Amino acid sequence: MSKTAHFLAESARVDAAAVQPLPGSRKVFVTGTRADIRVPFREISLSPTRTSGADEQNPPLLVYDTSGPYTDPDADIDLRKGLPELRRGWIAARGDTEFLDGPSSEFGRRRANDPTLAQLRFDLTRTPRRAKEGKNVTQLHYARQGIITPEMEFIAIRENQRRQALGTQEVERILGHRHPGQGFGAKLPEEITPEFVRDEVAAGRAIIPCNINHPESEPMIIGRNFLVKINGNLGNSAVTSSIEEEVDKMTWGIRWGSDTIMDLSTGANIHETREWILRNAPVPIGTVPIYQALEKVNGVAEDLTWEVFRDTLIEQAEQGVDYFTIHAGVLLRYVPLTARRVTGIVSRGGSIMAKWCLFHHRESFLYTHFEEICEICKRYDVAFSLGDGLRPGSVADANDAAQFAELETLGELTQIAWRHDVQVMIEGPGHVPMHLIKENMDKQLAECDEAPFYTLGPLTTDIAPGYDHITSGIGAAMIGWYGCAMLCYVTPKEHLGLPNKDDVKTGIITYKIAAHAADLAKGHPAAQRRDNALSKARFEFRWEDQFNLGLDPDTARAYHDETLPKDAAKVAHFCSMCGPKFCSMKISQEVRDSVFKDGARDRGLEGDRDAVRKGMEEQAEKFREQGAALYREV
Amino acid sequence: MSKTAHFLAESARVDAAAVQPLPGSRKVFVTGTRADIRVPFREISLSPTRTSGADEQNPPLLVYDTSGPYTDPDADIDLRKGLPELRRGWIAARGDTEFLDGPSSEFGRRRANDPTLAQLRFDLTRTPRRAKEGKNVTQLHYARQGIITPEMEFIAIRENQRRQALGTQEVERILGHRHPGQGFGAKLPEEITPEFVRDEVAAGRAIIPCNINHPESEPMIIGRNFLVKINGNLGNSAVTSSIEEEVDKMTWGIRWGSDTIMDLSTGANIHETREWILRNAPVPIGTVPIYQALEKVNGVAEDLTWEVFRDTLIEQAEQGVDYFTIHAGVLLRYVPLTARRVTGIVSRGGSIMAKWCLFHHRESFLYTHFEEICEICKRYDVAFSLGDGLRPGSVADANDAAQFAELETLGELTQIAWRHDVQVMIEGPGHVPMHLIKENMDKQLAECDEAPFYTLGPLTTDIAPGYDHITSGIGAAMIGWYGCAMLCYVTPKEHLGLPNKDDVKTGIITYKIAAHAADLAKGHPAAQRRDNALSKARFEFRWEDQFNLGLDPDTARAYHDETLPKDAAKVAHFCSMCGPKFCSMKISQEVRDSVFKDGARDRGLEGDRDAVRKGMEEQAEKFREQGAALYREV
Repeated sequence: MSKTAHFLAESARVDAAAVQPLPGSRKVFVTGTRADIRVPFREISLSPTRTSGADEQNPPLLVYDTSGPYTDPDADIDLRKGLPELRRGWIAARGDTEFLDGPSSEFGRRRANDPTLAQLRFDLTRTPRRAKEGKNVTQLHYARQGIITPEMEFIAIRENQRRQALGTQEVERILGHRHPGQGFGAKLPEEITPEFVRDEVAAGRAIIPCNINHPESEPMIIGRNFLVKINGNLGNSAVTSSIEEEVDKMTWGIRWGSDTIMDLSTGANIHETREWILRNAPVPIGTVPIYQALEKVNGVAEDLTWEVFRDTLIEQAEQGVDYFTIHAGVLLRYVPLTARRVTGIVSRGGSIMAKWCLFHHRESFLYTHFEEICEICKRYDVAFSLGDGLRPGSVADANDAAQFAELETLGELTQIAWRHDVQVMIEGPGHVPMHLIKENMDKQLAECDEAPFYTLGPLTTDIAPGYDHITSGIGAAMIGWYGCAMLCYVTPKEHLGLPNKDDVKTGIITYKIAAHAADLAKGHPAAQRRDNALSKARFEFRWEDQFNLGLDPDTARAYHDETLPKDAAKVAHFCSMCGPKFCSMKISQEVRDSVFKDGARDRGLEGDRDAVRKGMEEQAEKFREQGAALYREV
Repeated sequence: MSKTAHFLAESARVDAAAVQPLPGSRKVFVTGTRADIRVPFREISLSPTRTSGADEQNPPLLVYDTSGPYTDPDADIDLRKGLPELRRGWIAARGDTEFLDGPSSEFGRRRANDPTLAQLRFDLTRTPRRAKEGKNVTQLHYARQGIITPEMEFIAIRENQRRQALGTQEVERILGHRHPGQGFGAKLPEEITPEFVRDEVAAGRAIIPCNINHPESEPMIIGRNFLVKINGNLGNSAVTSSIEEEVDKMTWGIRWGSDTIMDLSTGANIHETREWILRNAPVPIGTVPIYQALEKVNGVAEDLTWEVFRDTLIEQAEQGVDYFTIHAGVLLRYVPLTARRVTGIVSRGGSIMAKWCLFHHRESFLYTHFEEICEICKRYDVAFSLGDGLRPGSVADANDAAQFAELETLGELTQIAWRHDVQVMIEGPGHVPMHLIKENMDKQLAECDEAPFYTLGPLTTDIAPGYDHITSGIGAAMIGWYGCAMLCYVTPKEHLGLPNKDDVKTGIITYKIAAHAADLAKGHPAAQRRDNALSKARFEFRWEDQFNLGLDPDTARAYHDETLPKDAAKVAHFCSMCGPKFCSMKISQEVRDSVFKDGARDRGLEGDRDAVRKGMEEQAEKFREQGAALYREV
């Protein structure tokens, strides 16, 4: 508490490390059909390629940017005020919502009126919005009406990343060719149109998590025909952490690329922590409402009631939570299927509900009241993330009867949610050896009628505590390739403790790698250009460009500078790994020069052996004249 | 040099961190049919499972151990003396070798007689061994004669890891069930016999790198019908490092699980560095002889000659190098195929040979003299690692004409080596997106007639410099699953600088994860028991056991202790991630107790719903009596 008191007394300062633009990068905006649709990107500027003739310019690279206003030097960041309400006008213009006098949840009102929380509380000037009586304000509902919302157009521009400018001969010449992918049924058009976005949402194959009470969020989409997304978890526990740390983890996580953030707080002041995070989050925020509900009944699972849970849903929906993890698939009859597992039930929500079911010997209220939950979600546009409460917690328990029985029930609940036009994604495992991963993806697509899959890992082995970002990054890359829409990160602290800021970054970068590797393998039209641009920079010894095009320029630069700190080394045609004589890239460039005379680069020489032979003989002559001079030391 | 002078003046001390037994572990030996076949293992002892009744013992876990005598408290380690010559008697008993008066290479003699090297030189008391005139001393030659060598029996015991004791009902009861694997044609027998080892070697599907001049090495095998192996690289460069550091990297690398070590030194005193490493290495050592040959001609590739290279092969073979990377597949006509790549030629050896070919406009002497190279290898039993000099250095260049043209030539060279009974493995890429990895494995098996594949990574994306242990760990796990026999590690410093000891450890652990994930997916009979044992320990809150069963107990413990340092927390039924109220494993155990009455654990309850219902009702009653007491804070 002292830490938190300090936090506000010091008047909520943003983490300084989280507000600098990334090296060599600037924030740019692409405007849509209307002035208030301004889609942010990060543009990485590159230095020219030095050639024997005139230098060749390298076009800047546009990358998807999750960091929101934090990396925009023109933005005025004040955590106490929160972010600007980007979507306020769009929501209002639809005319299907109204402002309430205040929180309509009993708990929300109580917290709002508790004077002892004054120093903790975010100074919220806005009252909650809710759909007018009888209205449905979900993006799925609009999509099915054939309405293209500003959110959908925003997403189309964001996902495109100007990809139309790619695939041209000019780009191929500069960046090298692109491999066709293997999509396992994914449809990745060369251009993403607003209509394509609408159609994917209408079909239930993608969701846009955007609660009307979270107008600060920049619209994003989760579906297997779009870029693979990642989620970063944060949240305090009874044992450690404070509001300040959690807000820092959020701004830190989105800086490195987290597409959504889940607040899994289970400790003190969950309500207030969430408010601070939501008001300052440009990405969708997800929660597991049962955690807070359990706090409300002092951690006694069997004391949970539908009424307490219902009030929690409304409380969180009116704060602006964009998606709820609901473990409604844990049925009484499935619980015994877990009893002989090596690791039983490892989902917190799943174990809580299993215990409730056993105690009362009744079906879970999440299942029996599911339609009422849909009624709540559709009035705020909260998307479902149907939780896999019976996911395997060990390789041994993967793909077992309990796990797949629950998946079938999640498919049934998906149909119910869709009848209410409520958006749905499905959560997945867990711990799964590589050869059993694809079955998870295929079964999920079949049982849940192509609703987006959102998986934790999966971890491909249990034997590396301390490295589970890696054991799971392997599985995450593979399931992303097979069609998983969002990958929930795992940090090095998994199974061992609560992640700190460094762990959050390591988890995010690892999962950005997995998501990008998946996009490449699927053949996403905009994916490979970044690899090609970085590899070209590497081959041309444009060290700064190589660092800046990477997922983590700071670490790349620091590693390089450990052995060669001087600026001179940033243009040197070698690094400390091989030294000047042994740099294959240096030699290889000499080889290239020896094969091609200037200008000949674009001729299809493979087909023209004689010309090559002749060119090589001439060059061999030249080599002999130059001799060892080629190996000048730097 | 000062560093090195210090190194020997201080009389070569072993890295203290590398000689402690791992936590909870002791060295045990399994003896074969003769007393001098003593196969070392690491035995991890486990604490008992606490139950309501009597504690249940958990059997100790036997794991493959690459650390040699360094983790044996009974061993007397003195780097100046080197390791005991484990295989000396076996080699001598075959009667097909003789000791030479001294090095037969011109360079070896010169170094031996150079007084200025006295302070650097390992005090070698043994002269080199060589096959008697007309003899062939390769394990492949023996295997084809139907001879089962002590090396083969040693390997059979080592690979078995007492797996016959597994798969029993008792083990299944204690450790949980085992998934059948997907082997893509791999044959993984329930028991590895010496005859099976012999047969795999005779067929060329596996190799045993064991130069007769490296009798200190503990026999190991590389083949897809055995445990997937990993290699760690070390070696100084012109820019940095010393002999002392390189020996430390070797002892550090094998401690964490490196099955072989490649010495890629390119800086000063390569010969002396290698001697120190070989005399103290219990694992096979590989080199790329062209690096040293290039040093001998002052780094001028075009000055390389067959004579200089031949002398280098003999020099290294007589020191005891177990496998040579030879880039004999880089043919003149393939060089132009690389000219339009994004990253040209990224193999150091490949680029050196390409340059030589262009300069002289002749086919490489590695190719034209390949039969003579075989004649050298068979007299010392040096295995080939046929290098992929044209491997792709970027995702864009993956699976291109240059790469696959060279692979076909490597297949042709494999047949030549096999005609000489010389053991062969094939090196592979490189940078390859996930969907193009399997084609590499399938083409290698086809072109090289199932000779073992040995790949670097592959890296599945180019955009994460600083994290290429992860971008490549993903690809390594997948290609290991598809059938790759050995995975060459990549460290976080890849593309940026020379790895230090921490980078070596990170690379090794990452690759142990990849190799084990591959063994699991292939269905290796001895693989999953470690996952199950660790997961059971995790579920039962045996924290120390969980740490000790992991690949890196030190890091796991350190992460846990960051937030909960007290010893009490090592038995606590929660960690800082969720805190006491939210620990799913704790709740789940209560659920299990509630489903089963004592002793009922082994009844197939899934089939007996009524009994379960009844049991649950009784337990529900019990729950109600106990109430919130279940949530006692610790």
